[in-house]
Amino acid sequence: MSKLDELEDSCRDDIIADLQLLIRQPSVSAIKQGLLDCANIVASMMRKAGITTEIMYFYNKSKGIDGIADNDIETDINVPPLVYGEVKSKVNPNGRTILFYNHYDVQPVDPIELWKSDPFSGKVEENYIFGRGAADDKGELITRIKAVEYYLKKMGDVPCNIKFLVEGEEEIGSLHLKEYLSVYKKKFECDAVVWEGGFVDSKERPIISLGQKGILSVELVAKGPSMDTHSSLAVLIENPAWQLIRALNTLRDKNGRILIKEWYKEMRDFTSEELSMIENEPFDENAIKKEHGIESFLNNITGFEAKKAFAGIPTCNICGLVSGYGGQGAKTVLPSKAIAKLDFRLVPDMVPEIQFERLKKHLQEHGYANHKDSEKIDGGDNNLEIKLLDGEPAARTPINHPFVNIVKEASNKIYREAIINVSSAGTGPMYYFHDILKVPCVCIGGGDILNRVHSPNECMKIDRLIKTVKWIGAILEKAQY
Amino acid sequence: MSKLDELEDSCRDDIIADLQLLIRQPSVSAIKQGLLDCANIVASMMRKAGITTEIMYFYNKSKGIDGIADNDIETDINVPPLVYGEVKSKVNPNGRTILFYNHYDVQPVDPIELWKSDPFSGKVEENYIFGRGAADDKGELITRIKAVEYYLKKMGDVPCNIKFLVEGEEEIGSLHLKEYLSVYKKKFECDAVVWEGGFVDSKERPIISLGQKGILSVELVAKGPSMDTHSSLAVLIENPAWQLIRALNTLRDKNGRILIKEWYKEMRDFTSEELSMIENEPFDENAIKKEHGIESFLNNITGFEAKKAFAGIPTCNICGLVSGYGGQGAKTVLPSKAIAKLDFRLVPDMVPEIQFERLKKHLQEHGYANHKDSEKIDGGDNNLEIKLLDGEPAARTPINHPFVNIVKEASNKIYREAIINVSSAGTGPMYYFHDILKVPCVCIGGGDILNRVHSPNECMKIDRLIKTVKWIGAILEKAQY
Repeated sequence: MSKLDELEDSCRDDIIADLQLLIRQPSVSAIKQGLLDCANIVASMMRKAGITTEIMYFYNKSKGIDGIADNDIETDINVPPLVYGEVKSKVNPNGRTILFYNHYDVQPVDPIELWKSDPFSGKVEENYIFGRGAADDKGELITRIKAVEYYLKKMGDVPCNIKFLVEGEEEIGSLHLKEYLSVYKKKFECDAVVWEGGFVDSKERPIISLGQKGILSVELVAKGPSMDTHSSLAVLIENPAWQLIRALNTLRDKNGRILIKEWYKEMRDFTSEELSMIENEPFDENAIKKEHGIESFLNNITGFEAKKAFAGIPTCNICGLVSGYGGQGAKTVLPSKAIAKLDFRLVPDMVPEIQFERLKKHLQEHGYANHKDSEKIDGGDNNLEIKLLDGEPAARTPINHPFVNIVKEASNKIYREAIINVSSAGTGPMYYFHDILKVPCVCIGGGDILNRVHSPNECMKIDRLIKTVKWIGAILEKAQY
Repeated sequence: MSKLDELEDSCRDDIIADLQLLIRQPSVSAIKQGLLDCANIVASMMRKAGITTEIMYFYNKSKGIDGIADNDIETDINVPPLVYGEVKSKVNPNGRTILFYNHYDVQPVDPIELWKSDPFSGKVEENYIFGRGAADDKGELITRIKAVEYYLKKMGDVPCNIKFLVEGEEEIGSLHLKEYLSVYKKKFECDAVVWEGGFVDSKERPIISLGQKGILSVELVAKGPSMDTHSSLAVLIENPAWQLIRALNTLRDKNGRILIKEWYKEMRDFTSEELSMIENEPFDENAIKKEHGIESFLNNITGFEAKKAFAGIPTCNICGLVSGYGGQGAKTVLPSKAIAKLDFRLVPDMVPEIQFERLKKHLQEHGYANHKDSEKIDGGDNNLEIKLLDGEPAARTPINHPFVNIVKEASNKIYREAIINVSSAGTGPMYYFHDILKVPCVCIGGGDILNRVHSPNECMKIDRLIKTVKWIGAILEKAQY
């Protein structure tokens, strides 16, 4: 039995109160809202829990250091700081070190009008707490801090060494995490990473996910007349929205296949071990369809095919389209520009930088020509800019790593049975932990498909938070040996 | 010499002050902002000028009347009222009646961030007055009211009979004007209409325009998952933005040609008289290009071809695109819907309702199938709605109508030489005046290509306002005979 198994009901209020504290501090990295304030709240919460905590500012590269942190180094305050935490085990100082990777930043709240309550209120209704970050990732972060806090309170010690790395740029592609990890490699040294979050399925089975897709986020900006003008001029002046639409239409067929040359060239196939794991993985198709109000999946795929696609097929998605007048009624305008925001999900061994070059080449070959400096693509009447917003490679932790088993066994203490998931469909900076720290990463958490992560009315089940605290406790115990 | 030729400089301040009064009352028909307040300001300004004025509310059709206005009729307060005005000539009561058609509504102000001053301030800088409506159409309206006011003040009479029809829905397609004209046909009876506005070219030559293109405005709404969701699901859930892009891409080729079957079927060719008029018409290509920061026109057309296109080629224009996240940076979202607002400019004899049916049929034939009630188009995974926002036919007044000559001769008193323009590229409800009142419509006014009509920083030249007052005065005098 885990030391945290007997967590009393009083914990419920304590967890809710601290999670509300976090939710009530907006921390939207996309618009640089409240990040430093949120980092400070996280740090003081960790200190209160008994964790040795430090706010790590990004060193200013232009000042030049040799990978060594130093108090004299000039820091770059435009980069959200990391919150770093550490607890040494007294009983087991030379044992395993587990690093919790989390983030304190959240997604934007748009479309704000669809929220039933203030996204930064942390409103509690029955078994749910609502708000941006309630699940992703403030809800998950709180379970880790609380597991350590309750362990220290109860035992005066922890079963293995613990580190925390809580960043503030996850939702915009962890822009500086790779550099933080490289420069402070020694500081973040560990044996395994417990990833920022994870899911429990509709049958209350925890999913232990071992991989993540990568991402390439870009913005295409088609430019037309120097100002929005009267649409009667459309007979003489090319509308940049049409240009954007033609360009976008060359990228993907209606079945979702990406039409860019060599796009799939380095795409890693699943091993036979991974394939059988995917085949056995439960997958509640109907729950996903019902939650999203759709009748069938893209291309009418189902079952094994849908699961394989979810874990390992690249995508080309439109995150946003903006041009001209978007208000009520009609406005006869010819817009001066048209913008598309795209994200391409990548799989292991696709390299974001290479894919970006392929995208640029594709646009060039389709008449959006003569770009240079990865910025401007000109050619005849065309005037299309392409901007790189984010690029992260995909990663998969080997199924047979011993730490995977530790996490799985720990889950057995709390849940009926755990499911091993080869890769989530989402993206995170797992690749950099693999590449720089050379450690396995395992994603677990208390989320579920009804959390509306990144959507209006994001929420988290409160009893699941408590269960997750217990699961984290059990992992720390199992990791001791 | 016209009676208003000696207008003194003191008029300048009077005209500016009253135009500011109008500009400072926002009256955006697209969002139903301030319309009634603006109608009241216009009416009191007209009364002050000595014009017998009446605010005409839209009768409630459901109550049923037989085309007769009556004070007992229940009115529909959701329809912006007309401001009607009348001045009978004492000296010439059985002579011509000229009707001024204008509108008190304006376009939305977006993108608001590009305005250098408050769009509703009416700021004066040297020879310009700035603000939404400064040119279109409050600036033009004021010249007509002032011409009548100064005439009455100076002579105690007007040379011919005068009517005013000032509507509040021009910028959203004059939704009820046709019905107003039909029901109150007797009241609006006249011999000729002086249209809401017009232009003076870069060489200070007034353009007398005799026609307008028609319009079909529609909104396409592609629907996807029931809420914005995480873009990792793009591998399973079709993104409505892709569907919208595919649908839009079938409508028009890159040269601007509309690909909808029979789109051009009823399109009226120019007469040889019109063609020679177009050929002789000056056309400052370089000014248009310079103002809009472009190097060439669509399809590289120039000269006669560009002039013909401007006056008589249909268009398919994207006024707006909206889907997903449009803010700063990246947000990995799969949007629940994607919207496109389109306007198709039509030429005489294209019927908006028929063109709308062709558009729907086209979408159906391209897989966006089984729509009914001009609303929903379903078919397979497709879920595309099409909404009719506005439809107005095109119109052209015959070049050889005597009133055209009256307006031209009047202009000679103020300007060097006037240019006859067969049709403007813009749209208005001229067709309904032709069809219901059976009168010629002639567009004149004080605008120019630098007015930024429908764009940020709309403005009007102040000395041009005074010149236009004089021109209107001269038209009234010429119309006497």
